Parts: sequence; structure tokens; C-alpha cells
Amino acid sequence: MGTTPVETVPEPKYWHLKTVLSEALDSEFAVGQVLPNERELAARYGVARATLRQALEQLELEGRLHRRRGVGTTVAPPRMGVDVAPEAGARPGAPGDAWRTEGCALLAPGALPAAVARLLDGAEGPVHAVRRLRTELGQPVATEVLYMPAALAGEPAGTGAARGSAVLRALHRLGPDGQDRSVELGSVPAEDARRLDRLPGAPVLVVTTRYLARGATVAVSAATYRADTCRLTFGDCGAMDLLAG
Amino acid sequence: MGTTPVETVPEPKYWHLKTVLSEALDSEFAVGQVLPNERELAARYGVARATLRQALEQLELEGRLHRRRGVGTTVAPPRMGVDVAPEAGARPGAPGDAWRTEGCALLAPGALPAAVARLLDGAEGPVHAVRRLRTELGQPVATEVLYMPAALAGEPAGTGAARGSAVLRALHRLGPDGQDRSVELGSVPAEDARRLDRLPGAPVLVVTTRYLARGATVAVSAATYRADTCRLTFGDCGAMDLLAG
Repeated sequence: MGTTPVETVPEPKYWHLKTVLSEALDSEFAVGQVLPNERELAARYGVARATLRQALEQLELEGRLHRRRGVGTTVAPPRMGVDVAPEAGARPGAPGDAWRTEGCALLAPGALPAAVARLLDGAEGPVHAVRRLRTELGQPVATEVLYMPAALAGEPAGTGAARGSAVLRALHRLGPDGQDRSVELGSVPAEDARRLDRLPGAPVLVVTTRYLARGATVAVSAATYRADTCRLTFGDCGAMDLLAG
Repeated sequence: MGTTPVETVPEPKYWHLKTVLSEALDSEFAVGQVLPNERELAARYGVARATLRQALEQLELEGRLHRRRGVGTTVAPPRMGVDVAPEAGARPGAPGDAWRTEGCALLAPGALPAAVARLLDGAEGPVHAVRRLRTELGQPVATEVLYMPAALAGEPAGTGAARGSAVLRALHRLGPDGQDRSVELGSVPAEDARRLDRLPGAPVLVVTTRYLARGATVAVSAATYRADTCRLTFGDCGAMDLLAG
């Protein structure tokens, strides 16, 4: 391997093929339709299998194709817009709440993911970890763990999902008055893959939310959204400093 | 290929290796350090090259490793938090504006990307397309095309970057009073790859923003953020309907 600076790399062959395929998806195929197999497609477009595969991978990354074991490659429907900002006004457990509480564990501070511990301002003492699953149109779209220091949550009653809901109600009672959020690329952890109906390692969008009350962090949520089917939407965030200055 | 439902797929070998490598990155390597080559690493962990490569791909997806032609695999610094929400109060062209205007083209409505045409409510007549590049800490982090119907932009003076800045000022004068935004996974278009110092097809976060004035869409921006180095941050979006209901 020599040193090939990015500048000298020409537009790769699969990129052109991707554009051609993308147009074919618009004009010749319907959503849900199974594409011909790789051998046929490679022959049809006069390219090597490896080139075809790279183009298909790109189209999968862009949400145009779904590839599933045992099903083959199908034309994907447009991505769902999934509201991440005000969470559709549904409070935990209320009708219309897209999240289902699945369980609750009590973690020692040392057992927290490093990024979560940092956001909780180095909380001492145990932390509740509430697991939730979000479903839209009958499909699982996200998993979440919401972390709340036990010292703030009082004495949540029950076990499992009931206890998780009690922790969420405790957070609600604290009346958080602000939040900040970040989005980054990640991959599906093995333990979430089955719940999201994906293979481990598939790309996901990781949304981290910090809930604040009177300036202090009272909870942190780490949610993993399917990147193949979801487009995360953020509602109006008010005046734009960019353009209002 | 039989039909292997996701449920029966065991945790893959590379996933375990990924966890082991991730711990090694924390304890044995410094940011920027070049990892041993694949042959050495595969021997050290007693795995096949293909398994090792999958684990490295996962770690790259999660932003732990950078892989560059001619440089090899290095330990990545933590991702930069890049503020997407209020854009740090810097209006176009003001000191502190992270964006550099690069050029401006006038497009026929038929030449717009389909998604942009939809968001512009089927604008008739030509549309200005302003190209910008965002730099943070000396690194290119995003490219953007901002689309504004010419009928709303008046008669922007100049050519190239100067004309682009004039379009942005015209948008500023319209006093947009709202915006909505979405984030989804995409891949670097070939024409942006060099400017972002990436190879075509690398995963990116695509941020689409619609600017509104008095209820009507006055501009649409499509920005492509590097997913390897950026974590998109969204400031406080006010009260939380989720918890305030």
C-alpha cells in the first residue's frame, strides 16, 4: 500500500453504478419489490460482482434498499420521520406514548457507561436504568436506557416494567425545565439487535438527551434509533440566532 | 442461502473481539497512535483476518478508529460536538461564522433534488443554490447547499462566493421566524468527498433544515456532516412536553 492521497482518487466505478441503480429504483421498481439477484444485476449493468455489491451497500446506507437474510434485497419505503424533539406530547404511559417500558435495573455508579457517568456529573450512589422500546407503525424503531440517580427518584414501587414506569413518573414530578441532545453515528449493540430486528453492528443513530431541572442534570437518556428506517425530526426550536443576529 | 431469521443468529465472533479491542484502545493506546497492522493484530488476538476486519469496521463506525489510505489505522480522538441548533449565534459572514461561502448557482426547478423540491412546496421559477463549507478546529466538518427561490432573494449582486453571501443576506432580511430540521444517515457524494477529506461513500449525517417566515418555507438547507468526527448537538429546545404533560 503506497500513500495515495484522497485528492488523486478518481470517482469510483460503483458510484456511477449507484446513480444508475438509484434512477432504476425510481422508474422500474415498486416499494417492497425484490431486486434480481446479484449475478443477474451484475450482468445487466456489465459490472463485476464486487462493484455491484459496493453500489448496493451505498444504497442501503442511504435508505433506498433493505437487505435481509432469507428475503434478499428489496426496495425500501421512504424513511419514517420520527419525532425526537417534543416526543409528540405523550408522557410516559399515557395513550399515544410510542415507548413501552420493559424493565428497570439498579446500577452501581461504576457500572455506568463512561459517557453517561460524565453527563450525570459524576453521580455518587446507585442509578436506576429504565429500558424502553419505541414502536412506530408496528415496527420497532428505537431502544432506550434512561438513567436517573436513585437519590432523586425516591422509592419507586414494584419490579420490572412497573418499577421503570415509577422512575419515569418520579422524573416527571421533578419537573425538568430543559434538555440538550446530541446525535451521532453508532452500531447496534448485540443485546439490542434482536429487539430492533437488525443484525449486530448495523448502523444506528445514537441520541443522547440530558434532562435538566434548575440547572442540574436529573436524568440522561441514551437511545438507539434504526438508521435504515428512521429520519429523526426536530421540531421548531424558536428564533434562529443564525439569521436573526 | 436458507431463511435464517434474525432471532437465531448468535452473537458474532467479531462482536466479542470489538469489545476486547475497545478496552485495549482505552488502556494501551493513545489518541493518534497507529495500530499494528492487520496481520499482527489477527495473530495477537487469535482470530481470522476477516473477523478482525469486521471488528475494526465496527470501531470505525463508532468513531473509535480512523482508517486512512497511506496512514493506516489510528486511534481517533473523541468526536467533536458540533452545534447544529442555533449555529453559535454567528450570522453568515460575521466573525465567528464557522461557514465559508464558496459559490452560488441558479438552478431551474427541474434541477432540484426531489426532496428539496418537495420541501420548497413546489416552488416555480429558478432557485439559488449557495454552497458553503464548515470548518471546526481547522478541519472540514460539513458541506451545505442552501436553496432559496430567486423570487424571494431579490437581485443578489456579484458572482460566485460574493453572490452566495448576498443570497444569505437576503434570507436574513426576510427575518425567518421558525425552522424545522431532520437528521438521517447518508453517504458522502463523490463531489463532496474531497472537500470533506473522505472517500466517496463514507457514512455521513445529513441534516435538512427548512426555514420558515410567516408560515411559508423561504429556504431549505441540505448539509452533510462527517459522521466519523462529528457529534451533532442540539441546544435546549425549551419545555419538554414529554415530561411536562
